[in-house]
Amino acid sequence: MKQDRRVVSVLKGERLYPPPVWMMRQAGRYLPEYRATRQKAGGFLDLCYTPELAVEVTLQPIRRFGFDAAILFSDILVVPHALGRALSFEEGRGPVMTPLRAGDVAGLSGEMFHVNLAPVYEAIRRLRKELPAETALLGFCGAPWTLATYMIAGHGTPDQAPARLFAYREPVAFQQLIDVLVEFSADYLTRQVEAGVDAVQIFDSWAGVLDDASFASFCVEPVARMVGKLRARFPDVPVIGFPRGAGSRYDGYRQATGVDALGLDWTVPVSQARRLQEAGAVQGNLDPLRLAAGGEALREGVDAILAGLGDGPLVFNLGHGITPDTAIAHVEAMVRQVRGTAGR
Amino acid sequence: MKQDRRVVSVLKGERLYPPPVWMMRQAGRYLPEYRATRQKAGGFLDLCYTPELAVEVTLQPIRRFGFDAAILFSDILVVPHALGRALSFEEGRGPVMTPLRAGDVAGLSGEMFHVNLAPVYEAIRRLRKELPAETALLGFCGAPWTLATYMIAGHGTPDQAPARLFAYREPVAFQQLIDVLVEFSADYLTRQVEAGVDAVQIFDSWAGVLDDASFASFCVEPVARMVGKLRARFPDVPVIGFPRGAGSRYDGYRQATGVDALGLDWTVPVSQARRLQEAGAVQGNLDPLRLAAGGEALREGVDAILAGLGDGPLVFNLGHGITPDTAIAHVEAMVRQVRGTAGR
Repeated sequence: MKQDRRVVSVLKGERLYPPPVWMMRQAGRYLPEYRATRQKAGGFLDLCYTPELAVEVTLQPIRRFGFDAAILFSDILVVPHALGRALSFEEGRGPVMTPLRAGDVAGLSGEMFHVNLAPVYEAIRRLRKELPAETALLGFCGAPWTLATYMIAGHGTPDQAPARLFAYREPVAFQQLIDVLVEFSADYLTRQVEAGVDAVQIFDSWAGVLDDASFASFCVEPVARMVGKLRARFPDVPVIGFPRGAGSRYDGYRQATGVDALGLDWTVPVSQARRLQEAGAVQGNLDPLRLAAGGEALREGVDAILAGLGDGPLVFNLGHGITPDTAIAHVEAMVRQVRGTAGR
Repeated sequence: MKQDRRVVSVLKGERLYPPPVWMMRQAGRYLPEYRATRQKAGGFLDLCYTPELAVEVTLQPIRRFGFDAAILFSDILVVPHALGRALSFEEGRGPVMTPLRAGDVAGLSGEMFHVNLAPVYEAIRRLRKELPAETALLGFCGAPWTLATYMIAGHGTPDQAPARLFAYREPVAFQQLIDVLVEFSADYLTRQVEAGVDAVQIFDSWAGVLDDASFASFCVEPVARMVGKLRARFPDVPVIGFPRGAGSRYDGYRQATGVDALGLDWTVPVSQARRLQEAGAVQGNLDPLRLAAGGEALREGVDAILAGLGDGPLVFNLGHGITPDTAIAHVEAMVRQVRGTAGR
């Protein structure tokens, strides 16, 4: 029986010290080597769909910082894209999709789904060979609600109003959309595990904008079904749920969805995080802007997390993705501090 | 001794049924009479600073819907404006200010503060005379953190990153800014009470983006100081705190700040709201998009709040401002349902 990698042990509930560390969006624009690869690649989607490029950018932060986990370089919107929805990334504008109408839901087609996503699975297989043996490889996907917000609006929105209105006005079509996304996202995660990831994270980046009833129906229930499907095939692969902005709803989320570990956004207070940690692992939750700011703001933020959560199962991470303007020296300082090797 | 108006009784902890009802941003663009007055007024700030216009738009929703409370028509940014910061409102862009730098904090001047805000106090005096005797008049201001986000960025931002970075990088100047805003905002509320408002609401619209330590320093502590100052003069005037997006931090907010009532955004679940209601009044918290959508989504949303919170001190309200595209018939239906006069 092979031994679990450090991140995996913690996700299963073990306490390790120093805690394992990685960063959301660690393969990203703050790295000059990423910007260089991106420039050669053409478009952003070419990075996602060309295995050698996806492998290269996934490995870059591991080479530089020796993080305990690599996360597959990709984008949550490859799932709707693989279901036939038009997708492009425009410089400075983010993702652009053809807005989905109620009448479009029946036309979503999974016929080419795994063919379209074959380069992702190939990237995972290559990564598992190229990564250091001790480095965990994480797969991921977007949660159905978050995918729906982009599919319906056709782009990122500050308050996800188009999807919220769609759900209120077209409840039948919206539920059908969620159901399609549950099915194919669960399949997608299953294939990622088959290809070699050690654990997966489900990103519900816009979970925080829904009211009580909608959160239960569109965030909790669909993720619970996805976890159930994955668990049926792979009972031992940990799942990290990341319902960003869920606030007090983090409290029931682990039990209601069946996820092993909770990804905490940076607004979750330590008192709540400790309570959540009693039932299993937590991951997070430094404010990315403390990392961008550096100095005392960074030291205090890291200290607060280590002091508050270091005696339970903790994967140290940011509470959201690293911002492009962050200095590499700040990342180095953070990793040193987490690993207990920072000079004072 | 005069009897408290219904909203005021509830804010002090009494349970009334049916609950009193008003709406955040009830004087606004969804009303044709507001759009007509606005068009005559010239700019948005002319509405705020011309007592007869501010009075007129404040009264419009009372005439139409008979809400239990009128809220003074104004904008939270009149406070930094009265402290000498440039402010304009551009069609479709929202507020525009000259971004504040660390070196500008010392130059904030309160010399003309109450002179600049005299039209607001005059509007309150006129409103108290023109409102029906049973209608409460609410004053308000922005909380220091939320004001700071606009002053520093110079406009609205999706994640308030400029102010968050400023607070991390320039902690001394940032604290000075907060202190100035505490002092003048508390004075502003005091003058509003002197002019005739029955209660006040402190809008911390961007409380939800801060981490644990910053929330305590920049949201809780400044509001606690403001409440203390106001309380020293007017021990019986209720204060509603509205730390939008505070999530699990709502739990300690009433006790830590001393506010009488909690304004709940629409993401606060009923289970948490009931817990909060054990210590005093809550106000909210219908998703404004349920009101925009109407029909079953609206009925279910109103029902959930009345069923969950109707047996404690509740001021029925939205969980955020009404959106401009909302149909007037939906507002009428909501009011009928809250007052128990809706046909089935």
